[in-house]
Amino acid sequence: MKNIIVDAMGGDLAPQQIVYGALDAVNEDKDVKVTLVGKKDAIDGLLAEQKYSGDRIFVIDAQDVITNDESPTMAIKLKKESSLVKAFEALMSDGDAFVSCGATGAVLVGAFMKVGRIKGVSRPALAPMLPTLTGGRVILCDCGANVDCKPVHLAHFAIMASAYATAMLGVEKPRVGLLNNGVEEHKGSELAKEAYEKLKTLDGINFVGNCEARDILSGDFDVVVADGFNGNIALKSTEGAAGAVVKLILDGVNNGGLRAKLGALLLKPVLKSVKKTMDYNAYGGACFLGVNKVVVKSHGASKRKSVAASILQAKELADRNICEDIKRGIINYNSTAQEE
Amino acid sequence: MKNIIVDAMGGDLAPQQIVYGALDAVNEDKDVKVTLVGKKDAIDGLLAEQKYSGDRIFVIDAQDVITNDESPTMAIKLKKESSLVKAFEALMSDGDAFVSCGATGAVLVGAFMKVGRIKGVSRPALAPMLPTLTGGRVILCDCGANVDCKPVHLAHFAIMASAYATAMLGVEKPRVGLLNNGVEEHKGSELAKEAYEKLKTLDGINFVGNCEARDILSGDFDVVVADGFNGNIALKSTEGAAGAVVKLILDGVNNGGLRAKLGALLLKPVLKSVKKTMDYNAYGGACFLGVNKVVVKSHGASKRKSVAASILQAKELADRNICEDIKRGIINYNSTAQEE
Repeated sequence: MKNIIVDAMGGDLAPQQIVYGALDAVNEDKDVKVTLVGKKDAIDGLLAEQKYSGDRIFVIDAQDVITNDESPTMAIKLKKESSLVKAFEALMSDGDAFVSCGATGAVLVGAFMKVGRIKGVSRPALAPMLPTLTGGRVILCDCGANVDCKPVHLAHFAIMASAYATAMLGVEKPRVGLLNNGVEEHKGSELAKEAYEKLKTLDGINFVGNCEARDILSGDFDVVVADGFNGNIALKSTEGAAGAVVKLILDGVNNGGLRAKLGALLLKPVLKSVKKTMDYNAYGGACFLGVNKVVVKSHGASKRKSVAASILQAKELADRNICEDIKRGIINYNSTAQEE
Repeated sequence: MKNIIVDAMGGDLAPQQIVYGALDAVNEDKDVKVTLVGKKDAIDGLLAEQKYSGDRIFVIDAQDVITNDESPTMAIKLKKESSLVKAFEALMSDGDAFVSCGATGAVLVGAFMKVGRIKGVSRPALAPMLPTLTGGRVILCDCGANVDCKPVHLAHFAIMASAYATAMLGVEKPRVGLLNNGVEEHKGSELAKEAYEKLKTLDGINFVGNCEARDILSGDFDVVVADGFNGNIALKSTEGAAGAVVKLILDGVNNGGLRAKLGALLLKPVLKSVKKTMDYNAYGGACFLGVNKVVVKSHGASKRKSVAASILQAKELADRNICEDIKRGIINYNSTAQEE
């Protein structure tokens, strides 16, 4: 049995969709226990309304909430009664993994301060999963936790995200690509060139070379590493462009008369499935790799399905002991790097 | 009358589609003269086959070709009989503007070496135009000419791309955004933060703040500036994601039985128009801003339509004296910056 601590007040649709997601998760997996942290009255009300009578959902009361508008560091330091801070405390005392749909900055800072880095990890990194054209997933790491990086950080990202790919996607030797502005070996910024040299010789890492941004979703990579600034740009450009195409189609249908409307109706299952495939939030959240426990950040707009997916994902990662794998990989790398 | 020099051997479909594009351009605009540089026999053959008998297409013979696989610098230095090198020479002796669909690296290096930087410009930059959701265009600058940048370079990009937006899009005060990983003022990498400070106070530039990558196509910006590495990632992620959505729809239709096929048939005009909107190559090429003459790099896969669009775009920019505008803007900036 794994105890997943969930920040019940984080996200645009909290606490309702968070509570529903927790219910779905415990119904789906008999080995999941969920501890919801947030306004107890509201949470209890939602559980009662859903007629929950099981013994695998617990509630810890927290009356305060951290919002997107606050300074993450100040909020974590000062808001001791917030659902996020109390959830991290519950995680450290009795939890196996953690899920929040709240403010990304606060979740990352909170994890950093309250959960702490795995020994030897210089920079924990945020790693979402994107769909690929071949029906698989690709992990993009880092996507915004570290805007200015050194080559060694990208080496750590490769190690951590490879462990993540193995645990989550079941890939034994994840193919790791380096986000770059060309495929040739000597392409790129100073950082990219130096990172390439490090990744090329990285023990236990299946580095397959540079990945141009247009190939992230190709299915040729299980992991793509980048500094947090570029990873963020790649992630959001992808999101923006996919959204733009969908919006243009909808606009075209709306302005296209009966023929277009009939066409859209007939094509609805296809368009729905494409939308579902491209919606990376549906697969759960982004994992914050490199801290001492499993921390999953789900999208702010997460609904019950996505909340449940994130809880089950967090449980899976705890089951598979991903933090231990990362620790081993980093210790191994750091010892070799020092011998160089 | 403007004389547009065209590298007739550059691009996957050269020389045929380049020659056809030149024909379309002179037919479209009576004030355009095109000088095609490349294998004279082949070009003359294509012109004869198309029964061209006008006096606004000229041919300069060049027997050699620079390919994508060569080192740009070596190729420009050594291949004196290449269409690209001879085209740049024609540009400098008698041309008003230049178009190539050839290897990007070689075009940029060639422009840099043979055409030269505008006095005061530290880094010429590559600026493609992308479609926006509001039916307009947005210029992304730089997209790969300069992988490692300083804040002053981004200020120059803003000045050059603003002049470009005014000349090409007819926008009087182009809204300039800074590509960043968040909209808030203090977001971003060290580079982004320092560039923000410079852009904020830039004389004559309508800086509207940070642009998250998901908003590049929103229509809220006429210009988005970035270092060449980030810009390249944004451009190619956008391309990759839009292509992925289109591919998923096509796959869905192919595997979706009669209903999906009928739907796709009815929706064809909409899907075609979306594809056309998202295909930024159809609007002409990317302009290499900051060199002494108008240099347009069109996509390697350009067909006649896109070649013609690039030629007319180059002519328009020459007509509007964009190089003079850039020169004025940069001189003004550099004099103020020195006074600081």
